Amino acid sequence: MAPKAPIPTLVFLVRCPDRRGLVARVSTFFAERGFNVLDCRQHTDSRRETFFMRIQLDARDLGGSEPARAELEAAFGELAEPLEADWSMHPSEPPARMAILVTRTSHCLYDLLLRQREGELPCEIPLIVSNRKRLAPVAKQFGIPYHHLPVTPETKPEQEAALRRLLAEARVDLVVLARYMQVLSPPFVEAWAGRVINIHHGFLPAFQGASPYQRAHRHGVKMIGATAHYVTAELDEGPILEQDTVRVTHEDGPDDLVRRGRDVERQVLARAVKAHLEHRVILDGRRTVIFGGI
Amino acid sequence: MAPKAPIPTLVFLVRCPDRRGLVARVSTFFAERGFNVLDCRQHTDSRRETFFMRIQLDARDLGGSEPARAELEAAFGELAEPLEADWSMHPSEPPARMAILVTRTSHCLYDLLLRQREGELPCEIPLIVSNRKRLAPVAKQFGIPYHHLPVTPETKPEQEAALRRLLAEARVDLVVLARYMQVLSPPFVEAWAGRVINIHHGFLPAFQGASPYQRAHRHGVKMIGATAHYVTAELDEGPILEQDTVRVTHEDGPDDLVRRGRDVERQVLARAVKAHLEHRVILDGRRTVIFGGI
Amino acid sequence: MAPKAPIPTLVFLVRCPDRRGLVARVSTFFAERGFNVLDCRQHTDSRRETFFMRIQLDARDLGGSEPARAELEAAFGELAEPLEADWSMHPSEPPARMAILVTRTSHCLYDLLLRQREGELPCEIPLIVSNRKRLAPVAKQFGIPYHHLPVTPETKPEQEAALRRLLAEARVDLVVLARYMQVLSPPFVEAWAGRVINIHHGFLPAFQGASPYQRAHRHGVKMIGATAHYVTAELDEGPILEQDTVRVTHEDGPDDLVRRGRDVERQVLARAVKAHLEHRVILDGRRTVIFGGI
Amino acid sequence: MAPKAPIPTLVFLVRCPDRRGLVARVSTFFAERGFNVLDCRQHTDSRRETFFMRIQLDARDLGGSEPARAELEAAFGELAEPLEADWSMHPSEPPARMAILVTRTSHCLYDLLLRQREGELPCEIPLIVSNRKRLAPVAKQFGIPYHHLPVTPETKPEQEAALRRLLAEARVDLVVLARYMQVLSPPFVEAWAGRVINIHHGFLPAFQGASPYQRAHRHGVKMIGATAHYVTAELDEGPILEQDTVRVTHEDGPDDLVRRGRDVERQVLARAVKAHLEHRVILDGRRTVIFGGI
Repeated sequence: MAPKAPIPTLVFLVRCPDRRGLVARVSTFFAERGFNVLDCRQHTDSRRETFFMRIQLDARDLGGSEPARAELEAAFGELAEPLEADWSMHPSEPPARMAILVTRTSHCLYDLLLRQREGELPCEIPLIVSNRKRLAPVAKQFGIPYHHLPVTPETKPEQEAALRRLLAEARVDLVVLARYMQVLSPPFVEAWAGRVINIHHGFLPAFQGASPYQRAHRHGVKMIGATAHYVTAELDEGPILEQDTVRVTHEDGPDDLVRRGRDVERQVLARAVKAHLEHRVILDGRRTVIFGGI
Repeated sequence: MAPKAPIPTLVFLVRCPDRRGLVARVSTFFAERGFNVLDCRQHTDSRRETFFMRIQLDARDLGGSEPARAELEAAFGELAEPLEADWSMHPSEPPARMAILVTRTSHCLYDLLLRQREGELPCEIPLIVSNRKRLAPVAKQFGIPYHHLPVTPETKPEQEAALRRLLAEARVDLVVLARYMQVLSPPFVEAWAGRVINIHHGFLPAFQGASPYQRAHRHGVKMIGATAHYVTAELDEGPILEQDTVRVTHEDGPDDLVRRGRDVERQVLARAVKAHLEHRVILDGRRTVIFGGI
Repeated sequence: MAPKAPIPTLVFLVRCPDRRGLVARVSTFFAERGFNVLDCRQHTDSRRETFFMRIQLDARDLGGSEPARAELEAAFGELAEPLEADWSMHPSEPPARMAILVTRTSHCLYDLLLRQREGELPCEIPLIVSNRKRLAPVAKQFGIPYHHLPVTPETKPEQEAALRRLLAEARVDLVVLARYMQVLSPPFVEAWAGRVINIHHGFLPAFQGASPYQRAHRHGVKMIGATAHYVTAELDEGPILEQDTVRVTHEDGPDDLVRRGRDVERQVLARAVKAHLEHRVILDGRRTVIFGGI
Repeated sequence: MAPKAPIPTLVFLVRCPDRRGLVARVSTFFAERGFNVLDCRQHTDSRRETFFMRIQLDARDLGGSEPARAELEAAFGELAEPLEADWSMHPSEPPARMAILVTRTSHCLYDLLLRQREGELPCEIPLIVSNRKRLAPVAKQFGIPYHHLPVTPETKPEQEAALRRLLAEARVDLVVLARYMQVLSPPFVEAWAGRVINIHHGFLPAFQGASPYQRAHRHGVKMIGATAHYVTAELDEGPILEQDTVRVTHEDGPDDLVRRGRDVERQVLARAVKAHLEHRVILDGRRTVIFGGI
């Protein structure tokens, strides 16, 4: 993807029924307003006659003021309406705010924190939430507030209410389940649709649910994998963002699969979060269109 | 794996309950008889206290005569009995005889024929069998007899009987289902246990059964795979020999998955067949021990 | 890449200095002429301020006649001139004509022939040329004329002249060196610039020149690779189209590297040829822009 | 590799001229002394007639006392002498002591520290040394002493002397250069031969020396890689332990290569260090024999 670090950008994501002249219409809209297009990508699903587009602009051409942005948004809305387009606008400034939810294992948490620090993930991380106390020291190492919200089947509604308050107060845009060992309730999932990413330690749709590595070992597979997906009401069935696999052998016991799996999990999750934060993902039913490779 | 082309070899495969001194006992057995050990590998499944060993000898140390070989086999049997060992002996000469079963698609068939010719697969291919006429020209290109055995649900028993006669007459050791679109009957599978390899065009256990690519596409996966396994009575559930995956994107329609899958299928099948023909595989319930990497 | 098999398409490839409004200008040009854009991709090299674009049209919107095509070409030329653009137009009909040059080894040749037959490579293969007789039977298997043009240092100019005549008579668009063990002369290379693809059996820039596998083995590398590139006057230094690697171990002798390398070579070459034939490649000095992934 | 966490083990590594009966001799030696062989691997380089062996024993069979260990060592020495064997014995207790040398970038350092904590790397890390102050906070996060040893061309001898004192005092067994941007002097390298591992951010032998990513970008490569090797007096020419590659595209500028490279570097370095610490590596001139895969 084109210019990153210093240039403030504005991304438009568009999905609409396919018709002639869409690229020309959208690109002309921005050209007429004097925008420099940094990157423009389009995909047509010819089977379903659906058009997807991502256009990345130099936000300095906007003047940077809130009213100018609102005006642009309104004008684009007028263009989009007759096209029956679903669309959204994403400024790079201020950066998105990401909450990380964890339980026991730290490898995905560390990985996200380190990548954010290295500048790979364009976001702020205002808080880490867990149903256990265990990973509080990691949060402390990085100077990030850690909220311990224990949960039992009985207290689940209260715990989720507290979680939602925390996310709202911290103005969180994206929730990442970095091996959070709790199923979120349907109301939570619905309220946060398209904004919660989970890492599943298995190559979905194989080995849905619990203990995928143990089951993979019994099954005698020669590769294991991990899957990052948006969370929906159906467990481990949400739209897939990214997957990867790693080779294993007869010498690898269940513990070795866990160890080898950790490397795949953190990479798959990091790539998925990066694609989301760079506004390169458009949802399409249970599928995802991801521009710019992963 | 050590010496290939010119040296005739003798491979022993051994599986038995683990106990002390097994490597010493087996290796001393051969050292005392003057054999040069070309390669020796061992694996202990400590969870199940099972010992696996592959030992490859220079067969020229045997003198090469049939009686000498029978004598060695008998002597090893005496060693193996008190160890409760399952074992087998595999001379490299004469080479194994492999039958290929196909239906419509030629990519796996071509790949096996070409690799056998290049000297990658140590075997002879005395016949190709199909329930269709379609691939007869490929067989002709390579000068291999092609047997057309059409089949309907009604004629299945007769067809399989004919197939078994063909395999027996050609003294076949290994049957490879190179995209053979028929399920073999339980009696056939039982008679040929551990000697029929199938390529499934999906990353098992995901997408068992029919149309895996279409289902993978609907599911929105980001990788597809293929699995080579020994055929058992349960469809697509036999011990896995080899798997691999390849990345796909939102741009890939079902046809693209089929095309990308072809590359994975042929490689996965070739590696599995090669491991079997080099006597590097020991069955262990629904798992396989494969020495020497794939 | 969008629609393939049945729809005739027209691809424009454009490279020019970057400036505002390029996407809008080009896409509007085609929208005004009633074209359906099947696929549109753009890349801006912000370091060098260069703009690259590939636009794929439904050629049926053209009417299909030669004059209409010439008219479109002329009109686009007028658009392109003030932009200082290098550009080219590529109809999918008639398909490109590809010559394959070989010497001794058949694996890349077979692979290209089979993929072309499977419909993966949109081209015709009117001839195979070799400095040896050895692979004539392969050509015969596929019913393709085989031209034996032996060469010695003394006869090289004559041999190349004969080769150029053959290519001209067969109206060849692309020459693929599928393990052709001869260096082409600078005049040949210049005349065919950007239209000769070679497969080098090493991961360039490591192991340029002869015997890369033997040298890789002595060097003790843990991976080997292959590189497909356009041929230029400097040996193994032309713009790279595609590369890939495969893992090797201490057990692999030089012969094993050759065998493992064959699999990488054929895949790397096939992907490079496919990208070229689908008009997804734009040259950029010693680099290549390849749209749509490989 | 077989049993890990709790069982104390004893590994013997052996390299000698090949001859008959070596596996039997070595395995019988341990069987006669009542040892349980946990893992036994052998490799014969038939071109150079060299035999390599790794044998892993249950160290509890030794009784665990120092005298018993010394006695075993002496006895094995007597076996090894007539075989002209190079050999070494490696108890798992106490664990090896690893020093990490760094300069500016933290990704490899973090990765090693985290893996050591997760139990993936069987070692202790008594100190981190750097020619800069920059990464002191990382050391502090993990509670490990950080030694700042600045260096200029003039002070290099003194700095290395100080470094050698630190390593001696901390009884260090292995030095890992985790992106340490200094060349070690030949006397240092010689004194620590086979015990210093470096990560080079390029796919050796391509791009030896400085700025490999910048040069890879200019060269237009489609993959980049990293190489872990033992340090020798010749820069970037020591025996390779591990390599890996990752795909890049025309969209990736030099900074993107640096970012993508980080992921490969840390994994390659971690696998190499793990193989060394598990005593799975035998040096063989400029090549390495690595048992048990990487």
